[in-house]
Amino acid sequence: MSKPLSFQQVILRFQEFWAEHGCVIWQPYSEKVGAGTGNPATSLRVLGPELWNVCYVEPSYRPDDGRYAENPNRMQMHTQLQVILKPDPGDPQELYLQSLEAVGIDRRQHDIRFVEDNWESPALGSWGLGWEVWCDGLEITQFTYFQQAGGLPLDPVAVELTYGLERIVMFLQDKRSVWEIDWGGGRTYGDMYKTPEVEHCVYDFEAADVERLTEMYKLYEAEARACLGHEPPLVIPAHDYVLRCSHTFNVLDSRGAIGVTERAGYFAKMRDLSRQVALAYLEQRQREEYPFLSSGASSVEREAKATADRRPQIPELQQPATFLLEIGVEELPAQDITVAVNQLQTEVSQLLEDARLEHDEFRVYGTPRRLVVLIRNLAPYQKSYERTTRGPSVKVGRDAFGNWTKAAEGFASGSGVYVNDLQVQEYKGNNYLFAVKSEEGESTPKVLATLLPKLIASIQFDKAMRWNSTNVAFSRPIRWLVALLGERVIPFEYAGVTSGNITRGTRADGSPEAQVANAGAYLDLIKSHGIILDMDERRVMIKAQIDKLAEFVSGAVPVDPGLLDEVTNLVEQPTALLGNFEPEYLSVPKDVLVTVMRKHQRYFPIVQPSSREVSLQPYFIAVRNGPKENLDVVTYGNEGVLRARFADAAYFVRHDAQKKLEEFLPRLGTLTFQKKLGSVLDKVHRIEQLTPRIAAMLNLSIADLQAASRAAHLCKADLATQMVVEITSLQGVMGREYALRQGEATRVADAIFEHYLPRYAGDKLPESLPGIVVGLADKLDSLVGLFAVNLIPTGSADPFALRRAALGIVQVLVEKNLSLSLRELLKAAAEFQPVPVGDETIAQAHDFIVGRSRGLLGDQGWRYDLVEAALSARGDDPYRAKQTVEQLAAWAARPDWNDVLSNFARCVRITREFTETFPLDISHDPDAGMQALYQAYQSVAARITPQNSVDEFFSAFRPMVPVISKFFVDVLVMADDQAVRETRLALLQRIAALPQGIVDLSKVEGF
Amino acid sequence: MSKPLSFQQVILRFQEFWAEHGCVIWQPYSEKVGAGTGNPATSLRVLGPELWNVCYVEPSYRPDDGRYAENPNRMQMHTQLQVILKPDPGDPQELYLQSLEAVGIDRRQHDIRFVEDNWESPALGSWGLGWEVWCDGLEITQFTYFQQAGGLPLDPVAVELTYGLERIVMFLQDKRSVWEIDWGGGRTYGDMYKTPEVEHCVYDFEAADVERLTEMYKLYEAEARACLGHEPPLVIPAHDYVLRCSHTFNVLDSRGAIGVTERAGYFAKMRDLSRQVALAYLEQRQREEYPFLSSGASSVEREAKATADRRPQIPELQQPATFLLEIGVEELPAQDITVAVNQLQTEVSQLLEDARLEHDEFRVYGTPRRLVVLIRNLAPYQKSYERTTRGPSVKVGRDAFGNWTKAAEGFASGSGVYVNDLQVQEYKGNNYLFAVKSEEGESTPKVLATLLPKLIASIQFDKAMRWNSTNVAFSRPIRWLVALLGERVIPFEYAGVTSGNITRGTRADGSPEAQVANAGAYLDLIKSHGIILDMDERRVMIKAQIDKLAEFVSGAVPVDPGLLDEVTNLVEQPTALLGNFEPEYLSVPKDVLVTVMRKHQRYFPIVQPSSREVSLQPYFIAVRNGPKENLDVVTYGNEGVLRARFADAAYFVRHDAQKKLEEFLPRLGTLTFQKKLGSVLDKVHRIEQLTPRIAAMLNLSIADLQAASRAAHLCKADLATQMVVEITSLQGVMGREYALRQGEATRVADAIFEHYLPRYAGDKLPESLPGIVVGLADKLDSLVGLFAVNLIPTGSADPFALRRAALGIVQVLVEKNLSLSLRELLKAAAEFQPVPVGDETIAQAHDFIVGRSRGLLGDQGWRYDLVEAALSARGDDPYRAKQTVEQLAAWAARPDWNDVLSNFARCVRITREFTETFPLDISHDPDAGMQALYQAYQSVAARITPQNSVDEFFSAFRPMVPVISKFFVDVLVMADDQAVRETRLALLQRIAALPQGIVDLSKVEGF
Repeated sequence: MSKPLSFQQVILRFQEFWAEHGCVIWQPYSEKVGAGTGNPATSLRVLGPELWNVCYVEPSYRPDDGRYAENPNRMQMHTQLQVILKPDPGDPQELYLQSLEAVGIDRRQHDIRFVEDNWESPALGSWGLGWEVWCDGLEITQFTYFQQAGGLPLDPVAVELTYGLERIVMFLQDKRSVWEIDWGGGRTYGDMYKTPEVEHCVYDFEAADVERLTEMYKLYEAEARACLGHEPPLVIPAHDYVLRCSHTFNVLDSRGAIGVTERAGYFAKMRDLSRQVALAYLEQRQREEYPFLSSGASSVEREAKATADRRPQIPELQQPATFLLEIGVEELPAQDITVAVNQLQTEVSQLLEDARLEHDEFRVYGTPRRLVVLIRNLAPYQKSYERTTRGPSVKVGRDAFGNWTKAAEGFASGSGVYVNDLQVQEYKGNNYLFAVKSEEGESTPKVLATLLPKLIASIQFDKAMRWNSTNVAFSRPIRWLVALLGERVIPFEYAGVTSGNITRGTRADGSPEAQVANAGAYLDLIKSHGIILDMDERRVMIKAQIDKLAEFVSGAVPVDPGLLDEVTNLVEQPTALLGNFEPEYLSVPKDVLVTVMRKHQRYFPIVQPSSREVSLQPYFIAVRNGPKENLDVVTYGNEGVLRARFADAAYFVRHDAQKKLEEFLPRLGTLTFQKKLGSVLDKVHRIEQLTPRIAAMLNLSIADLQAASRAAHLCKADLATQMVVEITSLQGVMGREYALRQGEATRVADAIFEHYLPRYAGDKLPESLPGIVVGLADKLDSLVGLFAVNLIPTGSADPFALRRAALGIVQVLVEKNLSLSLRELLKAAAEFQPVPVGDETIAQAHDFIVGRSRGLLGDQGWRYDLVEAALSARGDDPYRAKQTVEQLAAWAARPDWNDVLSNFARCVRITREFTETFPLDISHDPDAGMQALYQAYQSVAARITPQNSVDEFFSAFRPMVPVISKFFVDVLVMADDQAVRETRLALLQRIAALPQGIVDLSKVEGF
Repeated sequence: MSKPLSFQQVILRFQEFWAEHGCVIWQPYSEKVGAGTGNPATSLRVLGPELWNVCYVEPSYRPDDGRYAENPNRMQMHTQLQVILKPDPGDPQELYLQSLEAVGIDRRQHDIRFVEDNWESPALGSWGLGWEVWCDGLEITQFTYFQQAGGLPLDPVAVELTYGLERIVMFLQDKRSVWEIDWGGGRTYGDMYKTPEVEHCVYDFEAADVERLTEMYKLYEAEARACLGHEPPLVIPAHDYVLRCSHTFNVLDSRGAIGVTERAGYFAKMRDLSRQVALAYLEQRQREEYPFLSSGASSVEREAKATADRRPQIPELQQPATFLLEIGVEELPAQDITVAVNQLQTEVSQLLEDARLEHDEFRVYGTPRRLVVLIRNLAPYQKSYERTTRGPSVKVGRDAFGNWTKAAEGFASGSGVYVNDLQVQEYKGNNYLFAVKSEEGESTPKVLATLLPKLIASIQFDKAMRWNSTNVAFSRPIRWLVALLGERVIPFEYAGVTSGNITRGTRADGSPEAQVANAGAYLDLIKSHGIILDMDERRVMIKAQIDKLAEFVSGAVPVDPGLLDEVTNLVEQPTALLGNFEPEYLSVPKDVLVTVMRKHQRYFPIVQPSSREVSLQPYFIAVRNGPKENLDVVTYGNEGVLRARFADAAYFVRHDAQKKLEEFLPRLGTLTFQKKLGSVLDKVHRIEQLTPRIAAMLNLSIADLQAASRAAHLCKADLATQMVVEITSLQGVMGREYALRQGEATRVADAIFEHYLPRYAGDKLPESLPGIVVGLADKLDSLVGLFAVNLIPTGSADPFALRRAALGIVQVLVEKNLSLSLRELLKAAAEFQPVPVGDETIAQAHDFIVGRSRGLLGDQGWRYDLVEAALSARGDDPYRAKQTVEQLAAWAARPDWNDVLSNFARCVRITREFTETFPLDISHDPDAGMQALYQAYQSVAARITPQNSVDEFFSAFRPMVPVISKFFVDVLVMADDQAVRETRLALLQRIAALPQGIVDLSKVEGF
């Protein structure tokens, strides 16, 4: 093997490659940018209708990524190679893969994957859809169809390739550390950049003067605005200052000087500036009459297809045949494959029915690169059918002489039949003229040629993109279409692509074109290319492969359906491989390792089969997209990637663990929780105060109280650790880990972790009382505080996730059988707020939480009316509300329920109109029925208080039902004598009041 | 011819070329820099002992150069390609020329010249010596041996090549405007940069907010200092802020927001910061133990010469032979050739004499690439000689027995002879011992091998440079040495170069090596290469060529010996060529055009022979260094260069002329003249006040006074025009031009121009009275003001050129026959100063000006004593002092002068000791001699006043001389009688006082 290219040679090769493909070769920018996108050669040139093809190197500064050069491949400065192709040349993935070959990466030797990764820069008002390109698991390029920039939609869309040069060269040179890269000229990358890297880190994290940088930011912003306010606006000078704003903001952020609210403010300002710059640029180009409307170079653009002029004949068939539709796409996001397959399943079925096309079974398949519909024995023609239309009555249709009137002739003509073919039929007792048109079924190819474009268009994705001048939107670009009925092509065009009979093989094979002789031969053809078309088949195959590999090292793969589904949809040709990593990384918290493997790399972790989650093994399983060949090479690459990821995580943990959790607290003072509610540290102080109050309500033991108090103190500290800043989902996880490492009691550590629970629907609930209490305190504080400053969730907006918080409160109380008054809890939380909290606010928050109870109980399947009955009486205590609905439901299921309910209801209904409560002096009414009821009432009332359960209530009340029933038969309540009448009403009022505080039976159906 | 390379292709070719030659390929910097030097890959990496070879592109921002894209090749942003070779690879010029070939510039097709251009960046504390490289007159590269950076000397020295990419590509693509350059990718340079260029100009000149930028500068400076104050210092972050300081300063400067004093302050701060950064970098590298001490790549470094191991034998000759020393150098500055030739002339002569080497004529020659000494018939050996030393006397040398004493033996031994060889000779009447040692002459080759290095080392240049590890200093690097006696090499080494017999041909031929068979064959060999070795021959040849070409277009070349001398020393093979330029440029002021042609391009302008200076023709003559071949190509290139230069000048004039001169005055308020003396505008106000005062002393006409006043008002306005800011030497010239254009009277315009005169030694003096008066006012104001604030010139320091000012005053008064009192002038000037001016200051300034009179008269050849005699009496009036010394000299030349002087002197000398002036009452002394002298005195005194001229004085005094003579013979002055004695002394005192105020004869020799 020849010597791998040096860093500088790789750059020159890429530049030569893209120059040969018609790109302008451009230079890095004269300002510090976070990415090549910041260079006006991207951020501005992608705007507007003009064409633009460019390639340039961009040293990119991201202060937050600094690791003091201690990490083998994470630096505050890395080098991007940026390529912009505008418009989409039609085969950008192929061009890209060729460019990799130009520097020595052969797609046949390696596992090159396009893994969904969408890009968004809120600071620039820009976004796009695309992929990370993985080479043996290593992300080497960001490949994006740029949809919007500076807040403006791009038309045409630009293809943006962002190569990570260091990674590519490390890969080529087989280096484990970026610093060891052979730069060229006899120097290493470390020679060139290591010392400056450390210096930048020291500066960005420690030395940069916050006050001065804040001042600089203001000056940059003011100067940017001045440039924009100039007539005409000074686009580039303004842009330069926006870049300085951005970099200065990034440094301030690294210095920990930006709170949450401030951040939003900064972003808003930068987004606004970017948008103004973008608009000013567009106006400028318009004034200059878009000089780049014609292409600078033709070779990037696809030659106008000769095929475009072909107007193919629509074939005719006489026999049923297999139908094939293959939508060839650039790699779809995993989730979108499932979405598309499901929709196609429904839509095709509907389409066949609506179009009266007979068929045998049909199947829909999906892989990252193709969506396939196969229909067996599709009829060559639509079924024929008769269409009958009612016209005028015969009286109107014929004149006195029996001749057709104008009306009849008009109707016949309009219905497409001869007037003499009109038929007379009775309709609602009168004779009417009817046109009966018998329609022959259209030929299936003709029907499909019309319907297939509509079918494809009917597929809806969460996020869709445009890529060419048709401005059709789809999950990812459509690059070919196969539509065959038997061996004949169904001709149509969609998104600029013409249907044909050419499919393509796997990426690993170089996507070779292959002719599909006929639809029936498709499955075999695809199989011969090593593609597993069926999602379920792939899933099963992968599961089998990974289990076998795990067994090989006496381990097991924990069940993870989500990951399995995702991996299934990342490959067409799944080949699992077993890799290992240095056992010393096992000292890094397991959750971290697992998160990195699953979330970042889509690897399956391996555990000891006996102990499952607990004992992680130093192995992993990846699933490549490709054949078994060169699996060692691919494995080697993937191991290197994981090693680097783990090194990064280990770096964080090592750094974090150098400090006690308490030491992170001051940093929380710089993180704004909410403007009026203060910092996260302020929130911690409130949680610390609220915790003993809730503990007292729950009558915690001293030990639990102490643990809860300590946990309250430390519960948010990990938010300031680097590991959590890096992977937010590890909040609580790292808190527990670091607490244990610094010798906190297990119950304290657990409470820190548990106070976040439940984090998502279906998540675990806290187990320990300290965890429960701190969690309640945290959630109640958020609810009361944010309601008080009027940040009440609306239909779509719930930025502080208050629904989840309220639901969490309810779930914990209900599931943990804790009877507590929401009102008391809220009032306690209100005491510590830095803003006034009125009764109205408490009431709103209370209603909001009760709303979650309602939802929860509804989701559990309880009858809506019973839920209301329970909540109406006991909403304040979710646990008891739950008990109430359970018992009420049991009673409602009894055969005598209607009797019980209706008798009680009569007592209520007859007294409901009286607002006055009458005095009950039974001596006023000697009536026997009255006396009997009174006695029954007394006996029941003696057994019931508002604290009683529904069961207790009904057990006491049930015996009274016949008495009530008899009472209403025998006694006239509304007696003429006022004293008698009011005494009777008084008794009924008291009976009606019996379940007060227990259940509100008026909400129950049948009341 | 194939299509010329595009801009981006040229970059790639250069990068490939330098990568192949072992350079690191680096990227443009992430901050705005004024030049590639600002990139740390130069400014820092050149420091310290480490090796470093790098090549990179650098878009370089120089706000002041902005022309709103109106100029075809002057922009605020241009693109440099920077190459650093450290250490000197031994053949950097050759490598450089090869790199030009790599992009298609063939040295055989074009006139490629290395024209002295030294580089200095006060802001960076950096300097180096080297050249502009000219290609057919176009400066395409700055080639520098970098001597100092960040205030620190470089060791090893770094070779810095700075290619002007736009110019090279324009040249290759034959474009007249940078905007038309084919960039590649189907775009032009204008497509890429024109709009941003205009925007930057608007920003830099108009929109940048001075207050905010000033604030930014402060923040940058503070942050830079903080980085430097960090422990350890943060080198790169500090450097970045220094770069921002520098760019911000440049923008502020373009905005016209920086005064002179402020400027100095900014420079001092930036220099200090740069130096600190440099020091911090060096310390850092030392801590890191200089990782680049070994070479990154070997190919740039010259292979250790095999010749280094040869230890050649020193030859022996028996017959006289021709001697040749050729010092082969990289292109010497024109002036240095003359300097070296003159020194060699003296030094060689002295060397031959000291070394007792007999020879016939010797000649010294100089061209840009060689210094040559040729000696005819140099003896093969030194002359032998006898050395005789006197020892002790015989008495001491022999004892009583005639034996040698210790003293004699010691003397003999010390003198290197046997004691018995001592000789006895008489000396001053006694016999002494003498040692006589006869020394054989050493062989000439042996002597020369020792002396030639010393000879070369003896050559002293104003500015010398180091280039390799020997750290020898010379005007430019020495690259070969030929030293032959006859056909034998005189072996020696100097500056790492070993002498031999290989010379080199012309640059145009590719500097081919050629063996010199013997010293006598050298001249023919050199001639055969087309080299004109002799400076006078070249000068004559060039003069003939240019005259002939001028005649061809019926024009003439104005005499310009300085330019002719310079051009003579810029070439080895002179070939003059005639070019033309568009006649419309003749509307640009002639002085501007001529300055551009002469100073910038070393072209000879052509005028109508009849009208000389006045009527410039649209032609020019350049002298290429090379043969007649391809002269049309070279001419075409030179014409293009001049066109661009003229376009730039025309741009300035056009812009300047849009305003009235008055409108530039406010800008002068921002230019500090001197801190305590205010702005240049303040100075203008003083000149305006002083002008009428001097006018009154000279009794000007009303018309002249009006003209002078107007001229005083406008005299400095042009300092704020762009043309003068660009070419300072045009101050006054542009003032006159713009005054005429705006309709000022000719005498006003002329006075504006003339008030600067004389600008240099030998310059014209003002002709008009208004010009004289304003010039005096300007100069007197400077003298008085600056003396008052104690800025008195010292031996070496005269930053305000006060010597020239004072000399100018003297010259004008003397040459224009203006009798004025310096004291009165100074007092008048003092009145308007913003600082107190004491008598002491006036006296100092007065003495200073009188000192210039002394110098002037001395330079004119007047006897020093006579000058003193005149100045002592009449220094206050330079014109009269001049008259005095002229007349006095005539008297001193008369045969009777001694008689006159000695007799007068006796009168003075005898009375000098008496401080008291005695009363003269002749009645006290009846002596006849006394009476006669008294009568003579009375007759003379009646004819003489202090206003008389020396002629008048002596005409009156001469008859008295014999009377005085007789008096001293006959009369005893110091008579015993006190009254008599005092009367006689009183008379002599009065005679002694006769020339008071006319001349001080006591200063005259022989007094």
